[in-house]
Amino acid sequence: MAAGAHTEGVSLASADKHHAVSSESLRNLGLAVLDKIGVPPEEAQVTIDSLVQADLWGVHSHGMKRLPWYAQRIARGGTNSKPNVRVVHEAPATAVIDGDGGLGQVVSQRAMNLAIEKAKQYGVGSVTVRNSHHFGTCAYWARMALPRGMIGLATTNGGPVMAPWGGLTPTMSNDPIGVAVPAGDELPIVLDMATTVAAGGKLDVLASMGEKIPLGWALDANGNQTDDPVAGRAGLLLPVGEHKGYGLTVVFEVLAAVLGGANFGRQVPRRPDPAQPMNIGHYFQAINVEAFMPVDEFKKKIDNLVHQMKSSRLAPGTVKISLPGEIEIQTAVRYSGEGIPMPGPAIDDLRRLARELGITDNELI
Amino acid sequence: MAAGAHTEGVSLASADKHHAVSSESLRNLGLAVLDKIGVPPEEAQVTIDSLVQADLWGVHSHGMKRLPWYAQRIARGGTNSKPNVRVVHEAPATAVIDGDGGLGQVVSQRAMNLAIEKAKQYGVGSVTVRNSHHFGTCAYWARMALPRGMIGLATTNGGPVMAPWGGLTPTMSNDPIGVAVPAGDELPIVLDMATTVAAGGKLDVLASMGEKIPLGWALDANGNQTDDPVAGRAGLLLPVGEHKGYGLTVVFEVLAAVLGGANFGRQVPRRPDPAQPMNIGHYFQAINVEAFMPVDEFKKKIDNLVHQMKSSRLAPGTVKISLPGEIEIQTAVRYSGEGIPMPGPAIDDLRRLARELGITDNELI
Repeated sequence: MAAGAHTEGVSLASADKHHAVSSESLRNLGLAVLDKIGVPPEEAQVTIDSLVQADLWGVHSHGMKRLPWYAQRIARGGTNSKPNVRVVHEAPATAVIDGDGGLGQVVSQRAMNLAIEKAKQYGVGSVTVRNSHHFGTCAYWARMALPRGMIGLATTNGGPVMAPWGGLTPTMSNDPIGVAVPAGDELPIVLDMATTVAAGGKLDVLASMGEKIPLGWALDANGNQTDDPVAGRAGLLLPVGEHKGYGLTVVFEVLAAVLGGANFGRQVPRRPDPAQPMNIGHYFQAINVEAFMPVDEFKKKIDNLVHQMKSSRLAPGTVKISLPGEIEIQTAVRYSGEGIPMPGPAIDDLRRLARELGITDNELI
Repeated sequence: MAAGAHTEGVSLASADKHHAVSSESLRNLGLAVLDKIGVPPEEAQVTIDSLVQADLWGVHSHGMKRLPWYAQRIARGGTNSKPNVRVVHEAPATAVIDGDGGLGQVVSQRAMNLAIEKAKQYGVGSVTVRNSHHFGTCAYWARMALPRGMIGLATTNGGPVMAPWGGLTPTMSNDPIGVAVPAGDELPIVLDMATTVAAGGKLDVLASMGEKIPLGWALDANGNQTDDPVAGRAGLLLPVGEHKGYGLTVVFEVLAAVLGGANFGRQVPRRPDPAQPMNIGHYFQAINVEAFMPVDEFKKKIDNLVHQMKSSRLAPGTVKISLPGEIEIQTAVRYSGEGIPMPGPAIDDLRRLARELGITDNELI
């Protein structure tokens, strides 16, 4: 039994030391790139912060390796660098936001802030988003609730990579779920998981490093088990827990995409044209703890729950029990000091992008 | 690859024909039992309806087999037959309900109705419950939202049967989640799943029939894999998707138990004393579709999502694609006609209970 829970993504602590980079240099490079392609400073800030934060957590699959794709989509017109993000439907505790084809992070920051505002007033707030794009990790948005003493939740759809259980046609994304729960003296609990055995980005990272994947993660395009991450990405990712992961994805697809009027299921292109909007959707919820009990009392109870977990008898081979999100937070502390061991291909792609845009004054160049 | 998704529980279509019983006779027997032990008629009605409905869905693990346990707890005083269920904390879109140690179904009906009322007014409503008991299936409560054109969600905690990932001490229930989504011409989508590979009630049913369980479902009390359902129930149930099922249970434990002030984690007794309240908790949420888009438009989109699933290319061995909850609804139609093939031991226990209470005028006696 492997030790501890962890969110989606691939930790590369053993990667080539030559690629250890500081979060500041990554951030500066990212901001320079988005500035060159016309993204306003405040919107660039949240976008790059979400990507660099993913790298700090060791979740490189959702980190700065995505930036060249974002930049290509903006350059080709599929993603809108200056969207008019607006509320198109509203009830006291809910809203629907149209992202106008903007960067997912720009739209999501607005939506999660609105969910938090509504939760402050009504106890709970739910905001759906349409006409959006890739938003990075779910955890980043769910965590926005923490400093407000709230529980945060985020889910999203995406391009179809999973078949309904018993089928072979890619019909849904492996819609991930992120939930963040504030604690007192302990670290916050932050779940972030895709509904497949492994996230697609994890296969991409392993493919870029020439690694194999375990059987049980994916089927190839003919519906056969495969240990080749490239064949798996061309085929199907398998749902976690068989029909259970399938069922969870159906529910998240309804909340993230159907309820807000975004594209859903196979309406989302599997290999999106960089010149066309994807129109994916997200769902954000904030739950105001204070509406249920004093926040301090709640945080003490969460600390108690954490202590109950930590004091479990250990299975053979386990060194300690981790709570969801704990490994990522500890990784971020370590990488903040030592630098982030970025996957080589991701750094190469970022350097190429910077050169193309004429960026010369960054320490990564 | 097995065909179709299904909710927790064991279908026993091949069981002894002699035990095929009508839902009406089960219902009458249940109402007579609760009447004898002092449960008011309206509260008996919802309790028995939730149990018989589970049997109709083929989910016998959460059906009338639970009634002798409920009756014993009421007789010994651990469950309150005439609770004063009351709202103890309220914000516009949220509430905390104290169930006063009553039957879970009595408390849950009140709580889900309040969540629906709040969702009607504010778009979304969340209600937590403390001082409650076993409430049957999650699906029963989530489905209450359907006739109102809403999405319903229910989760609960219970006695500890699962360890944190990497541990061996039972620390949490395999907190189940139920979500119901209204459709148009298609059947509603109703997910109902526990966060272990198999629900505990499923092991109980198989144990009562002398069957084995597959390896991977449970560990015995020494932490070793077992195919004996009795040893598995004395040991640990394994989380679905390893650390992912563990992470989901942590989140559901927070929502169902911590947030409402119920017992959580190991605070819930594993083998509850029938003379003591369990003080478990539930979480209910209703999302009013109309706050996001016209209900008819939403239902057409859900029908479209269902059609996308159904038209998937089939994996070898699959006859057709099912949506979550579909198998249960079709089972209920069949059992309504043919009778419910109840597990023999469950019927024997119900007859014994009826005899003890002096019930003689029921067709099952």
